[in-house]
Amino acid sequence: MLAEEQPQAPLGPKASLQELHFEIEQLDSEYAHVLDNEHYEEFLDFFVEDCLYRVVPRENHLLHLPIAAIHCESKGMIKDRVYAARESTMAEPRTLRHFISNVRVLEVGDEAIRAEANVLIVQTMINRMTDILLSGFYLDRIVRSDGRLRFKERLCIYDSLLLPTSLIAPV
Amino acid sequence: MLAEEQPQAPLGPKASLQELHFEIEQLDSEYAHVLDNEHYEEFLDFFVEDCLYRVVPRENHLLHLPIAAIHCESKGMIKDRVYAARESTMAEPRTLRHFISNVRVLEVGDEAIRAEANVLIVQTMINRMTDILLSGFYLDRIVRSDGRLRFKERLCIYDSLLLPTSLIAPV
Amino acid sequence: MLAEEQPQAPLGPKASLQELHFEIEQLDSEYAHVLDNEHYEEFLDFFVEDCLYRVVPRENHLLHLPIAAIHCESKGMIKDRVYAARESTMAEPRTLRHFISNVRVLEVGDEAIRAEANVLIVQTMINRMTDILLSGFYLDRIVRSDGRLRFKERLCIYDSLLLPTSLIAPV
Repeated sequence: MLAEEQPQAPLGPKASLQELHFEIEQLDSEYAHVLDNEHYEEFLDFFVEDCLYRVVPRENHLLHLPIAAIHCESKGMIKDRVYAARESTMAEPRTLRHFISNVRVLEVGDEAIRAEANVLIVQTMINRMTDILLSGFYLDRIVRSDGRLRFKERLCIYDSLLLPTSLIAPV
Repeated sequence: MLAEEQPQAPLGPKASLQELHFEIEQLDSEYAHVLDNEHYEEFLDFFVEDCLYRVVPRENHLLHLPIAAIHCESKGMIKDRVYAARESTMAEPRTLRHFISNVRVLEVGDEAIRAEANVLIVQTMINRMTDILLSGFYLDRIVRSDGRLRFKERLCIYDSLLLPTSLIAPV
Repeated sequence: MLAEEQPQAPLGPKASLQELHFEIEQLDSEYAHVLDNEHYEEFLDFFVEDCLYRVVPRENHLLHLPIAAIHCESKGMIKDRVYAARESTMAEPRTLRHFISNVRVLEVGDEAIRAEANVLIVQTMINRMTDILLSGFYLDRIVRSDGRLRFKERLCIYDSLLLPTSLIAPV
């Protein structure tokens, strides 16, 4: 078992809900920063080994349909995805920017924190104006592992039924 | 007089501005969540009985013109509006998503807290990409009623002079 | 030397990171409010005399290229810019709205706080819908001066290579 998988109380003894909320906002801000700058090695560090990362249309999520734009059942699968994103030479260069807001802590359990946040991602391609890539929300299971909060599960549930064909990188 | 209308100090004895600010952000995040998921029964709970809820173009607001896209002078009128939104079969299905940020507490009075926040609402219709529905700001009078913060007054003041004809649901 | 230039510890003795973070969020929210309402006199107050304010494409920032949409090396230059924005009669009237989120405190030094935040600015012109003007991030050096946080340096680094030709007012 890796060090980061040692279970720790997600909410420390003295942490208030407000402090926890602040920590989750910081986690989301760092997450946004890492993806907006394509720091994919650091992106991997946001997840524990045994994790779930999915990018799925809201309709499919509500109807429990399995189809997802991205589906990774482990950190290894996320690593593969990141490699594909980096090596893809077919994709036109673009800059993404994440706006993660309205964090809601749903449950502070013994094993994980369940939280939600709205997300708007805009995309700028070379010589074009900035467009909306997707809107949606993150649905998370967060654990404290190896001294910081990490995702046991992060679902990015987006509002459009259209798959953005350009969705190659993680979001 | 209903229980929820008992006046209570909006700012508790030990609450700091930072704590109050946090509470208002949580209020806005819950509000966003409830509307984005069309939980209109819960939406009603954000208001006290004797309330004002208006959705009004910025120009009209600045010039004190009465025309508004939505005008409700009581919780009963909001209820009617919500009923209309739910029963309207003419409207194409869509998903809204609220991004409420940059909360500013303007005044903490004996009877109410005056606060403001920027809001961006995006809209996704079936088989279309996500578009901006409106940008603007909320101008609020918030009271503590029946154990939680509620709106005595919420104005949604939007930047465009164009009325989004598709604006049926509350925002 | 002006009163506001007296050096003060950016982080007070009792302030926690969370409190500082909250203060910076408030600074950004006030900044957004002032620009969205074209209160340019108050906008000037966000800067110390000896300051740097630049609006620059991300590409140029990454490559250390000097070209910027706005470049002001002092408060006096910002004043000139604001005057130009106010007196420009060629520009079609528009309303801007700033969404500043995902603040990250990078360093709390003896002389300044380095911080970053994502920004989305939307623009509404008369009789048009609301569009994205730009997305990007602020890269700041913040000091405590004359009793409040002010910018020693604020860079607005935007994602598009296209200069929005309509960018006249500060952002």
